[in-house]
Amino acid sequence: MPRLLSSDAEGVYVIAATPFEEAGTVDHSSIDSLVDFYLRCRVHGMTILGVMGEFQKLSETETIDVAKRFLKATAGKVPVVVGVSNPGTSQLVRNAGAVMEAGAAGVMIMPVSGLKTDEAVTGYLTGVLKALGPSIPVCIQDYPQLSGVYFSADCFLRLAEAFPQIVMFKHEEAPGLRKLSAIRRATDGKKGRRISILCGNGGIHLPQEYLRGADGAMTGFAFPDMMVRLHGLYRAGKADAAEDLYDLYLPVLRHEFQPGVGLALRKEILRRRGAIACSAARAPAPRLDADDMAELDGLLRRLEAKTGKPIRAIG
Amino acid sequence: MPRLLSSDAEGVYVIAATPFEEAGTVDHSSIDSLVDFYLRCRVHGMTILGVMGEFQKLSETETIDVAKRFLKATAGKVPVVVGVSNPGTSQLVRNAGAVMEAGAAGVMIMPVSGLKTDEAVTGYLTGVLKALGPSIPVCIQDYPQLSGVYFSADCFLRLAEAFPQIVMFKHEEAPGLRKLSAIRRATDGKKGRRISILCGNGGIHLPQEYLRGADGAMTGFAFPDMMVRLHGLYRAGKADAAEDLYDLYLPVLRHEFQPGVGLALRKEILRRRGAIACSAARAPAPRLDADDMAELDGLLRRLEAKTGKPIRAIG
Amino acid sequence: MPRLLSSDAEGVYVIAATPFEEAGTVDHSSIDSLVDFYLRCRVHGMTILGVMGEFQKLSETETIDVAKRFLKATAGKVPVVVGVSNPGTSQLVRNAGAVMEAGAAGVMIMPVSGLKTDEAVTGYLTGVLKALGPSIPVCIQDYPQLSGVYFSADCFLRLAEAFPQIVMFKHEEAPGLRKLSAIRRATDGKKGRRISILCGNGGIHLPQEYLRGADGAMTGFAFPDMMVRLHGLYRAGKADAAEDLYDLYLPVLRHEFQPGVGLALRKEILRRRGAIACSAARAPAPRLDADDMAELDGLLRRLEAKTGKPIRAIG
Amino acid sequence: MPRLLSSDAEGVYVIAATPFEEAGTVDHSSIDSLVDFYLRCRVHGMTILGVMGEFQKLSETETIDVAKRFLKATAGKVPVVVGVSNPGTSQLVRNAGAVMEAGAAGVMIMPVSGLKTDEAVTGYLTGVLKALGPSIPVCIQDYPQLSGVYFSADCFLRLAEAFPQIVMFKHEEAPGLRKLSAIRRATDGKKGRRISILCGNGGIHLPQEYLRGADGAMTGFAFPDMMVRLHGLYRAGKADAAEDLYDLYLPVLRHEFQPGVGLALRKEILRRRGAIACSAARAPAPRLDADDMAELDGLLRRLEAKTGKPIRAIG
Repeated sequence: MPRLLSSDAEGVYVIAATPFEEAGTVDHSSIDSLVDFYLRCRVHGMTILGVMGEFQKLSETETIDVAKRFLKATAGKVPVVVGVSNPGTSQLVRNAGAVMEAGAAGVMIMPVSGLKTDEAVTGYLTGVLKALGPSIPVCIQDYPQLSGVYFSADCFLRLAEAFPQIVMFKHEEAPGLRKLSAIRRATDGKKGRRISILCGNGGIHLPQEYLRGADGAMTGFAFPDMMVRLHGLYRAGKADAAEDLYDLYLPVLRHEFQPGVGLALRKEILRRRGAIACSAARAPAPRLDADDMAELDGLLRRLEAKTGKPIRAIG
Repeated sequence: MPRLLSSDAEGVYVIAATPFEEAGTVDHSSIDSLVDFYLRCRVHGMTILGVMGEFQKLSETETIDVAKRFLKATAGKVPVVVGVSNPGTSQLVRNAGAVMEAGAAGVMIMPVSGLKTDEAVTGYLTGVLKALGPSIPVCIQDYPQLSGVYFSADCFLRLAEAFPQIVMFKHEEAPGLRKLSAIRRATDGKKGRRISILCGNGGIHLPQEYLRGADGAMTGFAFPDMMVRLHGLYRAGKADAAEDLYDLYLPVLRHEFQPGVGLALRKEILRRRGAIACSAARAPAPRLDADDMAELDGLLRRLEAKTGKPIRAIG
Repeated sequence: MPRLLSSDAEGVYVIAATPFEEAGTVDHSSIDSLVDFYLRCRVHGMTILGVMGEFQKLSETETIDVAKRFLKATAGKVPVVVGVSNPGTSQLVRNAGAVMEAGAAGVMIMPVSGLKTDEAVTGYLTGVLKALGPSIPVCIQDYPQLSGVYFSADCFLRLAEAFPQIVMFKHEEAPGLRKLSAIRRATDGKKGRRISILCGNGGIHLPQEYLRGADGAMTGFAFPDMMVRLHGLYRAGKADAAEDLYDLYLPVLRHEFQPGVGLALRKEILRRRGAIACSAARAPAPRLDADDMAELDGLLRRLEAKTGKPIRAIG
Repeated sequence: MPRLLSSDAEGVYVIAATPFEEAGTVDHSSIDSLVDFYLRCRVHGMTILGVMGEFQKLSETETIDVAKRFLKATAGKVPVVVGVSNPGTSQLVRNAGAVMEAGAAGVMIMPVSGLKTDEAVTGYLTGVLKALGPSIPVCIQDYPQLSGVYFSADCFLRLAEAFPQIVMFKHEEAPGLRKLSAIRRATDGKKGRRISILCGNGGIHLPQEYLRGADGAMTGFAFPDMMVRLHGLYRAGKADAAEDLYDLYLPVLRHEFQPGVGLALRKEILRRRGAIACSAARAPAPRLDADDMAELDGLLRRLEAKTGKPIRAIG
């Protein structure tokens, strides 16, 4: 496998949770079991220290330690992309250097909050990309629902033209299906150089995104094994079978895709699937109450009935 | 049927589209066919001139004319709630008076944009409710994703205590399942006086909302007949059968539930189901392009295959 | 005087308040006295039915009636620009036609809320400008603090190139001094066709804006007579004298320039200066309490002491 | 002087800049000269690592190092409050402990972004305050223009009742004069226990805030010496003389009070006054261009003319 992230990347780059113990300390042994779980799900890559990885709540030391543990556990079996978004460019560059040295395949960057126009986004990302240098592969994350930063397809395409190290676009503006089509057409390897497009947003429109030319998923849905099979079916030209599979999981996927409480739900499912020891997120974070738990029980019970296998089973 | 909206209301109060001709003029005869369609779907009520009804794009004269046409076509067969949210309180009160006189069952109000705290929301709604007077039944719409106005469950409950004319809560904060539970517990008819809770947000969490005690749906999903059957199943204690039914429609429901383009999708489905003559929304509004249309074709074809009946069939 | 607004426009286009009676009805005779006041202040133009004119709280009939009354009272002595921003394009066009027929010099348009990128703003304004046609002069209002819509200087300049009827830019992004410089350089009549640039934001940076090439002010500061003198001093090359004059009023200007309560303060000052009979704004609107009133008393007393003339005096 | 921040605090707690070298590294010797400058201005206290201190762009190690350098340079001559706002509660608590151990007088906390109601703010701050424990004096910063978090006066007052370690309120909601009055009345030492109220927002309404009962200023205006004199005049009952003094500086103060570019302006003035060696802010940060520089030259030249002394002179 190539050491570095490339624009040919495709498949499921699961957004990894960061496991904590009940008291809030990083649970390193659960990092190992989580990586093992993801690898058994046959994910094509991993993205760590994203929003779902609670990167903002880690100290700088923890950030590097967590990245190293993930990289060590992964042992080069799949590429690992590391989120390095940061209010300060110098910190961003320092963290990017550290994780690349530790074996990351590339870094993911989201524009800082407060940028208001394509002009401002271009200015910011130009500064960051120049500071990072040409040798670190970059995935640009387009997640305006969180960052408050909106940019147009054209803005991204101009940046990608200026900076060949941009090899991946994480699509998660919502609604954003047309933007996906626009960027796909312009980066199809003919009209423009190919760029990998992976989709976030919990996978809520994943079948439609595949049909519009996405290369895969980059999201934290707690059943990455389903997404891996989905990807295989699309690649095999079996779009209807893919969507049948997806629809079985859609009730749980849609439930998990709630801002805030969604993180708690995901970690709880990962716990129930045996991937991590404790579902706690770091404060400030929502906790599931009895209602939430009963609701999740019901949804998972229905999923087991429909798929005919326990949620702990992988595949 | 009682003439006025009451806190006992339950079931499906479909949010009605406002039909336009291609050129943007109101299509009055499609109002008639749309009402006929909704009634054949056996909806329990109708909510007109909401966000999906494009109320902000109608002149004051059109507003009253559209309301009268809907009310005439409905002919008292089900209660009609009329959205009267308005930047100016005097206009709100005038429109409310006009539609009540024309036979509306109640009015729906969303706080104006720019209110920042429970205190501000309380101040605003107190002013509006006093100006409206005690005789007009009111549904408070909680839709912060659009209005930008957030208020707590307590804020609503204090208002409901002060103003008995508040008979209904339109729940659509997202995520908001806990808020629904909190308001349900406090308005269960025992701990506090009963208030009807109907859920919006395209129905994206409707089964969970029923299980948390919601009284029904107030949303514009283009298959209200499914929601009516769903309601019946929940009322008959058949929660699993209800959720099975719901899950069949979830892929389309989730697709329709996109801000912006969702309105165009809904109107197009209503057109295909024979409910309205033209799917155009008034400018500024998104239009479906060829990709959008092909995508919708695929989703509806799958729905027909799974339900075993054409989408034009009602029931 | 030319009948229509042109790109040569300069000076003080005061944003007019809409006077109401205590009960909230439009006070037509105060429109007459207000116009008389503004004319005695020797304003170069008037902008009615802007944000400060509470346009959103007027019915369509009131909108046209108020515009006609202002136009009649002005009697063609100065050009009158009418704000026609509206959630619906058809209403916008209809109102624009009505006020132009009644003698307006041009219309002012602010993009509707919810537009997120230059691309979206361009799409929206292109639709509106085409619907309005080439014969109505247009002022584009750039007020993102209220609308939530941000666009770049380039976006405006491309639109202005495509639509020659854009003759004026109302600058009020904040901070926005660099954007003003960028647009001024590109519309200086040499590098690009001249466009009039008038500044809003309560005049809080007016001296700096003049030095950066602004053509004047379009704001509702309750001492437009000061701004008229200021304009004369800048045109006479007396920048220091202009800024001395401005600084005398800055404490009051800065106090008035508060969102929300600022409207109440302005109307109260206009009342004290004899321009209108009643300072009430339409609900929902802030009211001045005893603290606010005492505070305003103090600021105005200091202004009288520094200028050596009563606030009622004009000039 | 008491070692810890108390509810009796009053006067000018200047928000300190964090000095950087041109390349972006922390300039420790400029910390010393800056502290010396502030002390010669006779400030009553200092607040470091606030928004103006670019706290978000410092690594954890730099954060502690910068705090220690400021504390060492201050040598206990005035109390130093340290901003410890952080997306993660554990980091917040750790940093608070470290700076208190190093000699800080208290910490300043702003609610994390994303909290939408009084209920959510109360939940968040309760968690943080419990985690911090009762022995660290806390200043709550109310800066919704930056954080996006709005809370009511009542919300703050209930928290202050529950947590006696809240000894200070940094008021900077805008507009917010009424909120200041409400909190002042409830914390006057009679109706409720006294809490110190210091005002931010660049000092743009400082005279009015003093008259409404504020205890002083907590802002980074680059002429803290003026604010110290202002405070003395208010304490001596010379309100008119205070406001005369303030008005001399208002043109510069208002110019500095621009979001974004304001930081660059402040650091440039501090540089010109000899307080720091280099005006650079850390990337991403605005830089002053030639227009900005000329504009600032003009404003400072006018200030020197009006005050009759060079800007480098202190007092």
